[in-house]
Amino acid sequence: MNIAVAQSGGPTCAINASLLGVFRQGLKEQTVDHIFGAINGIEGIINDNLINLNTVIKTDRDIELIRQTPSTCLGSCRYKLPEANSGDKVYKKITECFIKHGIGAFFYIGGNDSMDTVAKLSQYFESNRIDIKVIGIPKTIDNDLEYTDHTPGFGSAAKYVAATIQEIIRDSSVYSVDSVTIVEVMGRHAGWLTASSCVLRANGELAPHLIYLPEYALTEEKFLMDIKEAKQVHKAVIVAVSEGLKLERANSDENYGTGEVDSFGHEALSGIGKVLENIVRNNIGCKVRSIELNVMQRCSSHISSKVDIEEAELIGEQAVSAAVSGETGKVMIFKRLSNTPYTVITETVSAKDIANKEKFFPREWINLKGNNVLDCAVDYFLPLIQGEQIIRMKNGIPIHFHI
Amino acid sequence: MNIAVAQSGGPTCAINASLLGVFRQGLKEQTVDHIFGAINGIEGIINDNLINLNTVIKTDRDIELIRQTPSTCLGSCRYKLPEANSGDKVYKKITECFIKHGIGAFFYIGGNDSMDTVAKLSQYFESNRIDIKVIGIPKTIDNDLEYTDHTPGFGSAAKYVAATIQEIIRDSSVYSVDSVTIVEVMGRHAGWLTASSCVLRANGELAPHLIYLPEYALTEEKFLMDIKEAKQVHKAVIVAVSEGLKLERANSDENYGTGEVDSFGHEALSGIGKVLENIVRNNIGCKVRSIELNVMQRCSSHISSKVDIEEAELIGEQAVSAAVSGETGKVMIFKRLSNTPYTVITETVSAKDIANKEKFFPREWINLKGNNVLDCAVDYFLPLIQGEQIIRMKNGIPIHFHI
Repeated sequence: MNIAVAQSGGPTCAINASLLGVFRQGLKEQTVDHIFGAINGIEGIINDNLINLNTVIKTDRDIELIRQTPSTCLGSCRYKLPEANSGDKVYKKITECFIKHGIGAFFYIGGNDSMDTVAKLSQYFESNRIDIKVIGIPKTIDNDLEYTDHTPGFGSAAKYVAATIQEIIRDSSVYSVDSVTIVEVMGRHAGWLTASSCVLRANGELAPHLIYLPEYALTEEKFLMDIKEAKQVHKAVIVAVSEGLKLERANSDENYGTGEVDSFGHEALSGIGKVLENIVRNNIGCKVRSIELNVMQRCSSHISSKVDIEEAELIGEQAVSAAVSGETGKVMIFKRLSNTPYTVITETVSAKDIANKEKFFPREWINLKGNNVLDCAVDYFLPLIQGEQIIRMKNGIPIHFHI
Repeated sequence: MNIAVAQSGGPTCAINASLLGVFRQGLKEQTVDHIFGAINGIEGIINDNLINLNTVIKTDRDIELIRQTPSTCLGSCRYKLPEANSGDKVYKKITECFIKHGIGAFFYIGGNDSMDTVAKLSQYFESNRIDIKVIGIPKTIDNDLEYTDHTPGFGSAAKYVAATIQEIIRDSSVYSVDSVTIVEVMGRHAGWLTASSCVLRANGELAPHLIYLPEYALTEEKFLMDIKEAKQVHKAVIVAVSEGLKLERANSDENYGTGEVDSFGHEALSGIGKVLENIVRNNIGCKVRSIELNVMQRCSSHISSKVDIEEAELIGEQAVSAAVSGETGKVMIFKRLSNTPYTVITETVSAKDIANKEKFFPREWINLKGNNVLDCAVDYFLPLIQGEQIIRMKNGIPIHFHI
């Protein structure tokens, strides 16, 4: 049989490693002939836009470059599959594409929505007695998938956030005047990535002095009190905040983050970092700056975590093994057996169970004041950011793989 | 004699390497006994806040860590020395501090303002027949100092900008929908750092498709025309823009970048990236995003340029040699002898000549349309971003040096 793989959702540093895992295990499996890649996720299946990966990934150098290339080599999509009974036409197109290319197993690397696609598609095939296995391979820097200990892509994002915030601490600490620096980290509903900045403690860094997560609502008064307290101890206060933090305002008529109007009179989407910056500026008046780590936190593969990249490749390999051994409608997950030595195994769970759920940062790992995380979080995060890839460079710049 | 060194101005990845150069050459010079560091630039001299670096930098490991620590180990300041005749009190305090500690030579690592301090201080000492040499060591990611081929700190910033924009290109190119991504790079008056993103061409990257510098004013109409043209060729258009770009508006009553009002009714300082983003959103309507590289571009020492760090250390060493051989009131500069092989030598120029001047990106390296740079710029930039430091890590995070 042939197999097909596609990538979906927002970029990470590790999605291509999972693609590589599928490809390399596909080569090893005797029952697998060709390995196809679909362009732009499930859209590539619907539109019959496949490429034969065997003709694209040819050398050891290709393999090394794929590991160090961020984002998705095959492109991505944000397509949500309709319910099987209401969207038969799409399902038929998908089935036709698979049958045309002799695809016996399909691997979908993605986040929450993609796992929903895995659930629906596998159910459709089973109901219609079509023998095509569908396996989901998780990825997200948000680390918010249920059942799995963590998600591929998260460790590299966390390593970037830690290294970068440490550099921002150095940058913010040079002047003799008091300052507050607010770093806005991705995470709309789950604060994992912001919380992971606590790993700097392992190297003796006291900052970030305040860590705010979407899991714990904050009021303007509480925030100002926190800042004032921190300023008594630290000359340069560093704050890490999740983009999805809920800030409750004294005057609830005023609406944070949507009040800004640009020069065209259009509402500007102001990030929480900027909002907190303005609160400090207007109420405390010291030097204040907010910094958005923006897309860099999900694509800075020049400082990816070796553990993350290796695990992402491994989970891709294991997905192929699972399909070959007959599993379908499953998502690969990590189960952590121990922290020291760090040991994880892969398992499968039902895609139906994992899809459309979110895993939040544990409330019991947040301190009583709701403005920082406890040391047990450090133990959880540290193993995920270990090790560095050796990056192949050309002209002083990392080389990226192009299909 | 003893010598003293201080750091001033905005952080870079290479200021500490220059500090190290002064320290290591100081150890080598037979006429030099102790090497003092002043805390927070010239303020540390005025306030007699010195530390003996011989007691702080002790092992080879310390030396390695200083090379990989961004920002200023000794702190910084933005203090502008008054004219000698009007500020005798400050000059007397400085002189007292130097005499008290037996300082025979002072090295000031900094940007434009710091070179002004070097000029004034050396002139004061000469006028008053005080035998203390003063030598300036340049640093700035802006690369805007006259006479020198380039400035220490610039190469590392340029390497970060290139690597990061390349990753942003990957991140922006995954979806099948059209998009415009605008990356705002530091540079208020000089566009060197923004222009340096052209080095990606050396690796076959077509983006950034548009590069806008402060040296070439832009109108809203021209910008929209450029974007529309670029969109016809590229699905994901990438724009690099200097923070200091001057944008001329059709309706000159409206004022860019100051029109935004936050939820408190206060004027928000909106960056040019956000302004261009809004122009695209309101006039073209495709997916658009702006990204500010913020302080990361000046402090991301985890991806510093080896050439830059080595040169920064070398120029620190050469500064000590210059002082020992009797020079004063001078600033160290680089003179490039050839591109292939890349060869530079250090020279000295009068601090009076170099201070308070700015070197702009050459107009003749900008294309006729004013929206990109020519290939000769690639040849200039490439040697400066070559090579990588081996970064010592602990717990998966770079180790920083602390005094």
